[in-house]
Amino acid sequence: MYRCTLEVRGYELDSFNHVNNAVYLNYFEHARWQMIRETGLINFFKDTGYFLVVVDIHIKYMKEITLFDELVIETSCSKKEPYLYFYQEMYKSGSRVKVSKAEVKTLLLDNERIPIDLPEDFEV
Amino acid sequence: MYRCTLEVRGYELDSFNHVNNAVYLNYFEHARWQMIRETGLINFFKDTGYFLVVVDIHIKYMKEITLFDELVIETSCSKKEPYLYFYQEMYKSGSRVKVSKAEVKTLLLDNERIPIDLPEDFEV
Amino acid sequence: MYRCTLEVRGYELDSFNHVNNAVYLNYFEHARWQMIRETGLINFFKDTGYFLVVVDIHIKYMKEITLFDELVIETSCSKKEPYLYFYQEMYKSGSRVKVSKAEVKTLLLDNERIPIDLPEDFEV
Amino acid sequence: MYRCTLEVRGYELDSFNHVNNAVYLNYFEHARWQMIRETGLINFFKDTGYFLVVVDIHIKYMKEITLFDELVIETSCSKKEPYLYFYQEMYKSGSRVKVSKAEVKTLLLDNERIPIDLPEDFEV
Repeated sequence: MYRCTLEVRGYELDSFNHVNNAVYLNYFEHARWQMIRETGLINFFKDTGYFLVVVDIHIKYMKEITLFDELVIETSCSKKEPYLYFYQEMYKSGSRVKVSKAEVKTLLLDNERIPIDLPEDFEV
Repeated sequence: MYRCTLEVRGYELDSFNHVNNAVYLNYFEHARWQMIRETGLINFFKDTGYFLVVVDIHIKYMKEITLFDELVIETSCSKKEPYLYFYQEMYKSGSRVKVSKAEVKTLLLDNERIPIDLPEDFEV
Repeated sequence: MYRCTLEVRGYELDSFNHVNNAVYLNYFEHARWQMIRETGLINFFKDTGYFLVVVDIHIKYMKEITLFDELVIETSCSKKEPYLYFYQEMYKSGSRVKVSKAEVKTLLLDNERIPIDLPEDFEV
Repeated sequence: MYRCTLEVRGYELDSFNHVNNAVYLNYFEHARWQMIRETGLINFFKDTGYFLVVVDIHIKYMKEITLFDELVIETSCSKKEPYLYFYQEMYKSGSRVKVSKAEVKTLLLDNERIPIDLPEDFEV
């Protein structure tokens, strides 16, 4: 399980003065990038030109978040061939109150955009 | 059922040269705003100060979309008290090939952010 | 001179309930893309892999814009070797009241990201 | 002079695989929010309902920035009645190589959106 922290920025608020629902997806994506970087998988993607596409997201919004809120995102994942699933939960820093959670289903594409199996040693 | 059209803008592409997954949520939100405007519900929201919050989104990504693609979004909705559900499908203009679909669950809040029932005459 | 129209989308409003200053740059960029498309220059960029980078923007904000505003952007440009300047003005549709104006200085890079001269026949 | 650090997020890259020009404005705005928070001015805005609008931005782009780049933004400002100017410079963390600089001219509006003088004790 990987943890990533970030802080809400002023320009991310919408006309209801809270973070817009689409921005939560940005935050979760950021956390996946950080995970891919920390695991070293980023090199696999750079070397091969392969990449993950998102095919399905189910996201729940439990709490609104607003200016300067500090957030923690916990990300884990599992293989269910041919898919790679990411399970992500967002909390306010220093609390266990859940703000949002997402299940993100992805598929690995080669550099001709053909779906391929996850490599044996693709450990996350 | 309401239809809304829009065109992909250059700055909406990400580093994979297609529209980023979070931007699809922006598009679907835009279509909901358009529907709220066309039905006249926008006046209900202006008059009362009430507003809809998104509590859950399930989105499927079927096709990638890219620069200058013209899109049609079809939106319908139904009440399942206390929730209002939006069902949305995105197509490339002039085709019936589905690009994405989303189910968006929302809740009506009053101006003190308390969840309330949908008005009887809240027809969509 | 090229004209492009667009409409403000709900998710583009910020916590002051108007379009955020950075989004104006998105709109102006969109208008430049449209111009590049209409002039056929898009083929030059596709064929060569060359691209324009923005090196300087001076933007004035005269009026706020908000939900469902319909906008017209007028774009013209001129070569001042090695730069290509875009002059852009934004109006509310159906009026001559200026909302914003921008001067955008760009430089042509080849596919190794080396600045190069604008082609003789690069007419805009 | 105030310093703010931030890191480029994956979803902020555009189709040229670098941070889009409008996102630089987001970063500079974030740094102004941070400054307003650190100086305690945020309370002045909350108490009065007054707010600053941007009337003019001049921004220079010197270097491209890309995934995971760590940035430092230095912000200072000065009153030139009735305007408040922000001078901002962006660097890559740990270097003095400038990435971008911006001059941002703002105007204080009261809660009826009338321009007003900066308070005597409005020190930044």
